[in-house]
Amino acid sequence: MKPLRKLDYPVDQARRFLEPGPIVLVSTAAHGQRNLMTLGWHMVMGFSPSLLATYIWNENHSFALARDSRQCVINVPGVELLDTVVDIGNCSGREVDKFARFGLDAVPAHDVAAPLVGQCHSSFECRLHDDSQVQADNLFIWEIVRAHVAPRPKLPRTFHYRGDGRFMVSGQEISRRRRFKPDML
Amino acid sequence: MKPLRKLDYPVDQARRFLEPGPIVLVSTAAHGQRNLMTLGWHMVMGFSPSLLATYIWNENHSFALARDSRQCVINVPGVELLDTVVDIGNCSGREVDKFARFGLDAVPAHDVAAPLVGQCHSSFECRLHDDSQVQADNLFIWEIVRAHVAPRPKLPRTFHYRGDGRFMVSGQEISRRRRFKPDML
Repeated sequence: MKPLRKLDYPVDQARRFLEPGPIVLVSTAAHGQRNLMTLGWHMVMGFSPSLLATYIWNENHSFALARDSRQCVINVPGVELLDTVVDIGNCSGREVDKFARFGLDAVPAHDVAAPLVGQCHSSFECRLHDDSQVQADNLFIWEIVRAHVAPRPKLPRTFHYRGDGRFMVSGQEISRRRRFKPDML
Repeated sequence: MKPLRKLDYPVDQARRFLEPGPIVLVSTAAHGQRNLMTLGWHMVMGFSPSLLATYIWNENHSFALARDSRQCVINVPGVELLDTVVDIGNCSGREVDKFARFGLDAVPAHDVAAPLVGQCHSSFECRLHDDSQVQADNLFIWEIVRAHVAPRPKLPRTFHYRGDGRFMVSGQEISRRRRFKPDML
């Protein structure tokens, strides 16, 4: 699959792609290695700065790469990458370079050493904003410092994990803008 | 709308309903008041104990109720409640009892004082597991101590916030069980 052309996107709007809760690929680089992990445990925590929390288990190979580099890229794949993303989650970066194994393009980022995943619909460059809960709780609070989003499709068909090997694929979009108070939008 | 009959459900399986990232209603009770808030910022953090993190802004009326009672119920609504859930998010419990205003049944919980929302598909009774980041980061880490899930429909059509008044409604389910290593399920 060819890499998607992505454009700069406002970092305070990253929620449009992350807040619905899709499975993401986290890319990291440190100690002369790079890695990719499949992650479902993340949460928006603010817009300005644009904050995202992730839970990365300390047994995962990516944990030390994220902790030591204090950087990562959060990539949102579309459903056409489902099998690849499942397979990425079922092998370890200790044994394999996942970009090479799965034929994914490691596209240089702008502000961090970790690469973007070319085939993903959007990619968010992150720096560690708060490391106080990393060791105790495996909780990283990141600031999104640069956002890259493919203009087509406008909304990717994301997939969301239910456990037990089952995924929900994103469906239709519904607007309720008219019901919102302006300051709640 | 009538309340849904819910059955006991294993707490370590709460992820099936929460991990995909739906909008939830958080019910709280303290100081002789009860309240409901619309929340999209949550994240699974473990199975056993069954942990869920929520970001509850300290300007929200529910913040003090959650902090002081150290309890809440996380309720997952189906899309038939979309307008109600939007309206709940656009008014304050300082001014109105939201259960009465929106015709929702406050069903007594088993282990906590906060009520279940009868019309929601699933409800998870929570006790505060870790309060260390509540004041500094608005981050509550809850343990789900009891789960209630409606047997029909088997999977609710949940809705997921994109910001700007727009929601993604959950689509089809896809299984990739066969691609998982047994210990990754």
